[in-house]
Parts: sequence; C-alpha cells; structure tokens
Amino acid sequence: MEAIAVDCMGGDYAPLEIVRGCILAARELGCKVYLVGKEEEIYPILKKAGEDKNPLLEIINAEEKIEMNEPPSNVLRKKNSSLFVAAKLVREGVAQGLVSAGNTGAVLAVGKFVVGAEEEVERPAIGVALPNPKGKTVLIDVGANVDCKPRHLVQFAVMGHTYAEVMLGIKNPRVGILSIGEEEGKGNELVKETYPLLKATRLNFKGNAEGRDIYAGTFDVIVCDGFVGNVILKASESLGLAVVQMIKEEIKKSWLAKLGALLLMPALNNFKKKADFAEYGGIPLLGAKKPVIITHGRANAKAIKNSIKVALEFLDTHFNEKLTQNLKTLIPEGVNV
Amino acid sequence: MEAIAVDCMGGDYAPLEIVRGCILAARELGCKVYLVGKEEEIYPILKKAGEDKNPLLEIINAEEKIEMNEPPSNVLRKKNSSLFVAAKLVREGVAQGLVSAGNTGAVLAVGKFVVGAEEEVERPAIGVALPNPKGKTVLIDVGANVDCKPRHLVQFAVMGHTYAEVMLGIKNPRVGILSIGEEEGKGNELVKETYPLLKATRLNFKGNAEGRDIYAGTFDVIVCDGFVGNVILKASESLGLAVVQMIKEEIKKSWLAKLGALLLMPALNNFKKKADFAEYGGIPLLGAKKPVIITHGRANAKAIKNSIKVALEFLDTHFNEKLTQNLKTLIPEGVNV
Repeated sequence: MEAIAVDCMGGDYAPLEIVRGCILAARELGCKVYLVGKEEEIYPILKKAGEDKNPLLEIINAEEKIEMNEPPSNVLRKKNSSLFVAAKLVREGVAQGLVSAGNTGAVLAVGKFVVGAEEEVERPAIGVALPNPKGKTVLIDVGANVDCKPRHLVQFAVMGHTYAEVMLGIKNPRVGILSIGEEEGKGNELVKETYPLLKATRLNFKGNAEGRDIYAGTFDVIVCDGFVGNVILKASESLGLAVVQMIKEEIKKSWLAKLGALLLMPALNNFKKKADFAEYGGIPLLGAKKPVIITHGRANAKAIKNSIKVALEFLDTHFNEKLTQNLKTLIPEGVNV
Repeated sequence: MEAIAVDCMGGDYAPLEIVRGCILAARELGCKVYLVGKEEEIYPILKKAGEDKNPLLEIINAEEKIEMNEPPSNVLRKKNSSLFVAAKLVREGVAQGLVSAGNTGAVLAVGKFVVGAEEEVERPAIGVALPNPKGKTVLIDVGANVDCKPRHLVQFAVMGHTYAEVMLGIKNPRVGILSIGEEEGKGNELVKETYPLLKATRLNFKGNAEGRDIYAGTFDVIVCDGFVGNVILKASESLGLAVVQMIKEEIKKSWLAKLGALLLMPALNNFKKKADFAEYGGIPLLGAKKPVIITHGRANAKAIKNSIKVALEFLDTHFNEKLTQNLKTLIPEGVNV
C-alpha cells in the first residue's frame, strides 16, 4: 500500500490542522500516512479524534522542527527535524511521497537533496496550475531555480507538458516561453537562447507567451525562470487580496452595496473554489524521485488532505515514468546540452 | 506656454478618441497641443467639434503611422510617422512633452533615441504607480530595459524615489528590490549584486521586497529588471480580467446574484476608478529629457487628456531637475560604476 509522509510541524496551523488533514486522508482516501513530528503533540490530537489506534495513521517521532524563516542551508544539517525525517522516509522507500506546509525553501532543499532528482532530471522545478476562464495553465518554474540556463527551461517545458497531459488531462498541450513580446527575438538573453531549443523539441511549442497570457487560457504550459515565476505567483496572490480588501472598503460605505454583496456571496464562493489553494491541495516539485508536495503555509486540514491526494495521484498515474520517457523522446539529442 | 505633442495615429481608437482627448486637454487644462498625424483625418474631427480654429490645437501633418505589431527597429527609420514627428517636435524644443497610445516598443524607441535620455541617466525606465489598499507603490522598470546591470537598478531606484516623492507626495519613500525571499542574500545574481550597492546609497533602502509586497503597501518603490516588471504588470492586468470574467460566469447562474451585482455596481465603480488606467492617464518613461507618456493601447479621450495632464505635471514639478539632483546626491561616488 502506498504511504505518504507528512511533516506535521510545518505550517501556520501546525500541528493541529496538519494532523486533522492526515486523519481526513486516512478516512476518505484510505491511504497510509506517516505523521512526522513531536509525538507528544501529535498523539493527543489523534486520540481526541478517536484515531490513535488507526493503523493507517502512524506517528514517527522527530524532536526538532524547521522554523518559517530558517535558511535552507540549516535544513540539511538539522537531521532530526520533522521535515528531514519525513523526507528520509521517502528516500528509504518507507513512504512514497512527501507533504509539507512548512518553509518552502526548506521543503525544496529536502526535495532536491534528500528525496533527490529523478534520473534524467537536472533540476526539479515547481509547476503550478493557475486558473483561467477556460481552464488551467501550468506555470513552471515558480521558485525552485534561479539564474537558469536554456537547457533547464527546456526540461521545465517537458515537465510542464507532462503535468498538463497526465494531471490535467490536456492533450498535446500548447507550450510557450514567457517573454515581453510575441515575436521570436523579443525578450531577454535567456529567452532568446531558449527559443530555438524549444522549437527543436517535439513539444507543441507555440512561441513566446506574454504576462497577459498567464491568466488568459491561450497556453497550457508557460515556462520561465524560477525567479520570474515566483514573483508573478506571489504578486498575483497579493493582487487578489488587495482587490478584495479595496472592494470591501467601498462596500462598507453603503448599505445597498452591503446587501448586494450578501446576495452575491454564493456566486463568489463558487468562484473562490476555483481559485482556492485549499481545494486543489499543494504545488508539486516536479522531477523529484517521488512526489514532493509543497502546501501553502496557511494550509488547513482540507488543504493537507488534498495535498496527500495530489501525491497519490502522481503515484497512481505513474507520472515519473511518463516524465522520464518524455524527457527522452521529446528532446532530440543535441538540444539538451 | 508649455505644449505637448500627441501622436494622434497610435492606439486602438485612433485617431478619433485621441483627437477628442486633445480637445479635452485644450478646453480643461488650457494647454497647447500639437496633434501629429494625417491632417485629412484629424481636421474633420476638430471641425465637427467646432475646434478647428482653436489656436491651442495645432495639427502637424505626418503621412505615415507605426502599426501595433511593427518592430521597434523600423520605428527609427520611419521618419514621417506621426510618432517620430511628434518625438522630433520635443527634441527640437517646439513641444515639451510627448504622449502616445501606440505600440509601446515604438514609443520607448523614440523616447530613448529621439527625445533622448536626461544627462546623468544611463537608461530611462518605465515606472508605474500600482494601487494598494494603503496608497500606491511604484514598480520600476516595467519594460524599458532587459538584462539590466546592478548600476541600472540603482538608477531605477533613484528614479522611483523621485517619482514617489515628487508625483505621489510620499516623503522619504521606502525602497525595496524585488526578490524571492526577505533576507539579504536571497534572490538571483542580479539582486545579490545590487543589494549592497543600494545599501550604500542615501535612499531609504528597506531590503528585499517579495512579489506579495507589490500590492500590499509595504514599500513605496520596488525596483526590478524590466523583463520581470513587464511580465508582472501584464500578468496582473490579465488576472484582473480573468477574475472579473470568472465571477461574471458565476453571477449569470443565479438571479439573486444578478441583483446583488446590480446593487454592488456603485461600490465596484468606485473601486474601478482607483485601478483604471483611464483615470490616472499614461505611464511615464522616467529619465527621458522631456516627459514621455506611454498611454494604454485602449486609451479613450479621457485617458489621453489625463496623460497630457501627467506630462504637464512632470514639467510643472520640475521633475527632471530633481531627478538629476537626486542622482548626484543620493548615489555616493563609486556606487555608480
């Protein structure tokens, strides 16, 4: 049976919401979960839920934890942290996937160096499926790698392609490279050097994508350097929050607007579901040897359960086998150098 | 009297809305406007508005125009285009500012090479004041320069500082550099090299800003490479459009929600005013010898009038003198190399 190791000490609502998420996963998904962290904190939560004897929920004690602002360099030295121990369970084959809502840099570090990269993959990358009116667009990389070389972006493109095909069910996904103009030749040095390489692959490469394409549904996969992807992702999140706050301020000024907002709530909630990270779980580090799911720091029980579900889906769909295959067949020899 | 040269052939609604914007500017701001473009198209619009004899509105005939997808390299060769002729009026001192809603790359090209850069400025950059719940944050550069060197970012920081101080009235603006982590040492090579230089300036440098700070009001000025700024700006715009469209789809499904939306309209319109480019006019190319205002391609008459207003404000506040002064006093010798 497949088992997922969950870092129970990472995240704003750890350990309570994380443990609750593990319980939901065991109950609803029927999977085995290793709850890694301080036993004295985890056990009472399981006991209170009447789940302390559930064989699907096994505590692995780990005395230390990684703080949210701890530099990733510390992480690999702190071998008794819940995150490191969870990653080691995956490395040793005890568990087949890792979920953590902790410090993203730390999860990346153990994902890259403890779980390790899949053969053929030079640099694992974070792919995120962003919603748009027509469906979803995979943006990759959103923060695992900065100062990328062209060959890395080519690999990200294949990872994004595989993610779109296997996990989102998109056939022959349209792949673009993020740039600041539509035409070939527009962009920075990295884009200009990567463009001909992508053109030479067997991907359905559609050329340059612009910032406006990210939420427009005009591409299925958009590749970029992790620095660029990360600031876009975080700017998007903050824009969403700012807009909501500014609209709320305006609504407060009039009772008619307040009533209007009330009537709109169900529609807004339906929309929120499409955009809410808690619904779709965490974000995968693609190219790691086993699924590594980075969950939002504000993750609640539902987000954790859904992250575990995502990890299982990666296993069930044989994502890594397909990725390895695609890296071999979609990139002609000579392009990957 | 100050005069602004307006490219009447650039933009989705050119020449009608552009000419109408010039008329509004002459009427409401009392400034002289050179309407540059095909006389046979511009004159009938002026005549119909009863403004063909207004001495504030002077047509300068230019036979050609720059298309929206025309490469910037063509622009400098097409010397009879409305954009080039308008820029030349500024260069020659006939007009003191340039406004165009045309092809952004083309406006940048004439801004940099026909109007030219202010002394002390190595690379003019586009600064945009983005709204947040607490006020505005200047993001610079959003597309004039890619593959920047650290010293360029330092200059952008001073341009952004001057813009925030002079145009937004922010005292001692908090300056940050866009990165992917808060702590010094996080980021890509460019950020790591620029950080100590910014620290050595006399700016109110607050360290790394993250993507989430752009719309949070935690910094007054955020500097970045033009590639990064451009994709963020365009992604933000497309996210806004996507959210509105997705919410509309949900609203359509229920009559209660439709009613709610109706009651909310005034509040939403108030919010929209804060975010709408037509309200605040165009985006300035900072560091050009004279104000160059890049207006949105979808600009209507109001956006054009407001862009002309912005150009006049740059002149009235002696922005360039202050910028030149700041470049000399805020950057200690040795940093700018």
